[in-house]
Amino acid sequence: MRPQPPKGTRDYFPNEIRARDRAVATVKRVFESFGYAPLETPALERLDVLTGKYGDEADRLIFRILKRGAAGKRGEADLGLRYDLTVPLARVMAANQDLPRPFKRYQVQPVWRAERPQRGRFREFIQCDVDCVGTASVLADAEMVAVMHETLAALGLVEYRISINHRKILSAFMDSLNLPPGVQLADIREIDKLDKIGIDGVREGLIKGGTAAPAVERIISYIDAGATKYFAAYIENAKSYVGASPAGADGINEMEKLAEYLSYFGVPDGVLSFDLHMARGLDYYTGPIFEAYVSEGGVGSVAGGGRYDHLIAQLGGPDLPATGTSFGLERIIALLAEREAPAEDGASVDVLVAVYDESVLEDALKAAAEIRAAGAKCEVYLEPSAKLAKQFGYADAKGIPYVVVVGPDEVAKGVVQIKDLAQREQKEVPRTGLTSAFRSMLEKD
Amino acid sequence: MRPQPPKGTRDYFPNEIRARDRAVATVKRVFESFGYAPLETPALERLDVLTGKYGDEADRLIFRILKRGAAGKRGEADLGLRYDLTVPLARVMAANQDLPRPFKRYQVQPVWRAERPQRGRFREFIQCDVDCVGTASVLADAEMVAVMHETLAALGLVEYRISINHRKILSAFMDSLNLPPGVQLADIREIDKLDKIGIDGVREGLIKGGTAAPAVERIISYIDAGATKYFAAYIENAKSYVGASPAGADGINEMEKLAEYLSYFGVPDGVLSFDLHMARGLDYYTGPIFEAYVSEGGVGSVAGGGRYDHLIAQLGGPDLPATGTSFGLERIIALLAEREAPAEDGASVDVLVAVYDESVLEDALKAAAEIRAAGAKCEVYLEPSAKLAKQFGYADAKGIPYVVVVGPDEVAKGVVQIKDLAQREQKEVPRTGLTSAFRSMLEKD
Repeated sequence: MRPQPPKGTRDYFPNEIRARDRAVATVKRVFESFGYAPLETPALERLDVLTGKYGDEADRLIFRILKRGAAGKRGEADLGLRYDLTVPLARVMAANQDLPRPFKRYQVQPVWRAERPQRGRFREFIQCDVDCVGTASVLADAEMVAVMHETLAALGLVEYRISINHRKILSAFMDSLNLPPGVQLADIREIDKLDKIGIDGVREGLIKGGTAAPAVERIISYIDAGATKYFAAYIENAKSYVGASPAGADGINEMEKLAEYLSYFGVPDGVLSFDLHMARGLDYYTGPIFEAYVSEGGVGSVAGGGRYDHLIAQLGGPDLPATGTSFGLERIIALLAEREAPAEDGASVDVLVAVYDESVLEDALKAAAEIRAAGAKCEVYLEPSAKLAKQFGYADAKGIPYVVVVGPDEVAKGVVQIKDLAQREQKEVPRTGLTSAFRSMLEKD
Repeated sequence: MRPQPPKGTRDYFPNEIRARDRAVATVKRVFESFGYAPLETPALERLDVLTGKYGDEADRLIFRILKRGAAGKRGEADLGLRYDLTVPLARVMAANQDLPRPFKRYQVQPVWRAERPQRGRFREFIQCDVDCVGTASVLADAEMVAVMHETLAALGLVEYRISINHRKILSAFMDSLNLPPGVQLADIREIDKLDKIGIDGVREGLIKGGTAAPAVERIISYIDAGATKYFAAYIENAKSYVGASPAGADGINEMEKLAEYLSYFGVPDGVLSFDLHMARGLDYYTGPIFEAYVSEGGVGSVAGGGRYDHLIAQLGGPDLPATGTSFGLERIIALLAEREAPAEDGASVDVLVAVYDESVLEDALKAAAEIRAAGAKCEVYLEPSAKLAKQFGYADAKGIPYVVVVGPDEVAKGVVQIKDLAQREQKEVPRTGLTSAFRSMLEKD
């Protein structure tokens, strides 16, 4: 029996949970300040809801759950674990058509992906999503980018950029190549891997996927023209590739609106980049797409999203336009943890009440209850027969700053001993003054 | 395509999430005040970790996940969704043998059980567990009962009782019946169903399970003697059934210690009951067991736990003694929601900034950014072309109390209009006074 967690998953200990909770609280505060409200969905979704939305590669990474009960045949799966928070939201919108629209929700929950485990990539991780459903206005897309910027800034990040592109521009370009049916989305997924596998890797993937050599070279030249800090250069390149196609022109117009709105939102030009080749790997995107990268500590992609105008109809709902973005916090939290001194986390417990022996156990427990009532986190050593040295060693190992001793002598004298382990000081206080002593110590800390 | 969530699961909307978060915050505060620190484990566990710990019935309710990747044969499962938080903790203790002990942790996470869905019973629900590993002292068991009492009281519950028994007493009694091997644990699970299926149901279940008629009748008489508010009566009955067996005498001694310690912890006699037949259905219990019932609103069982001294060794770790308790919050939250006026939840958004038209969009977005900076949750209506009446209707539908209008006239005059939808009042404030106007309105609320 190996007691390690399943590969690609982790156990989380107090300091990690506190660091994550702090980051999640920051993210939620920004989301709520923009008027987004929380939503939660089940970990389980029906397989017909999950599959056919993301693309073949992602579909293979969905964890499938065996049918339960007598009716289920062996080996048959009917449920899966959610792969992202976008498809569940689309399902909720299809199921609840009376919600006021635009519907603005955020969602912070784990997702599961059966990826090959590797450093920094997990099979279970938390996503923080923010989405706006029910408006086709580019203003909503601009707000997504503004929320990305405000969130990353609020998390204390400085060296980041938000890459922006438009699926209509990318699709118009791909359409101009007259690829065989089914190849276009596969090619877009290959292009999306550029940062991971490099230009040669992309070329190889395209060829392997059945794209003809001239089309491959045109894609490579398009990618080369791709990335710029300058919006004017992006638009010029886009026009040269797809300006003549109606869909391409649409995309270019929307990008011009988006750039204008971003300046209204106060998103500084310096954090933006415009990347013709930026693709976002999932099939469901239809409009502006965004991805945020943190360069500090080589963190890489930390957030991404875009417009997905027909996903809700695909799930049986009305054909509602929608846009959203998703943050992955694990790598950001790891970066912030490297910056901060671990000492800041503090101990989980303020006070240990040591138990001298059974004869004074009642006194010890009553003292602990009073210390708790004063607002301190106070534990009692739960083995009345343990030696005091062992109990002090335990407080030391856990980093508990204060130990209170209520021995028979103290009970007789009506006092307690308070030991400050860090300062190696001990003071005797009257039993009746215990609560106020801890109140003032907690205020001082 | 049915867009409803899978049967036995739910989507959670803002007011429900807020109600749950309030309850969870209360529970965590009590757990932390006793010196427990958070731990989180993956939703996925290896099947060999999950199975063979709870009993056959529970094993059948574990959701099994198909093996992923090329190596996995079709239909083969190697992982499952966690069924409770106790087995994952035992696995963590087996994997991390250097943790300071007693190890006191709490854990608030969902668990999954493939139960037949029914009113108020879900396939995914949150458990709040608190456990102490590494001491065999009954003081730790007493602390569990004290934590149950303090938690239920902190949640605002009044009409509850905590039922206590000892697995050694129950087992000693079952041993005295000389049942065939394997029947004892199954019979204990039958006895545990008393509240659900009544005494006749238990009798039927015991007979079906292969227990001989005289033994069945002795079990029924034991159950009848079972429940009492009076500790002395409980001990007297226990002695009459198992006083002569060494294990029974052990259990009786420990129960006497437990009752003494509970008085030290200040748990009032009035909330306790002592129930010889109370069994707790899971196989892994070995010592004192506890279950809390809320009578208000017919809520029923809301928490339960007990000592499980050999589970960690079963998972490949050292043979560490452990005790713990688990709260299910769904029914408590439903009860508290019935009590509270829904108005208390308040709106998710404080202010809507209406967008008059594109010409003043920049002014509207800048006003919104300032209102956010003043600490308000402020959304902008994300369709610049929508009529103002539609935007006001949206604010009304969402219960947003204030609407700010920045039209061309206002921009020209250097003012904004603030409409209080509840009071049907409108005031004009200077554009430069917008932030301070909202600061004082938020303080007033």
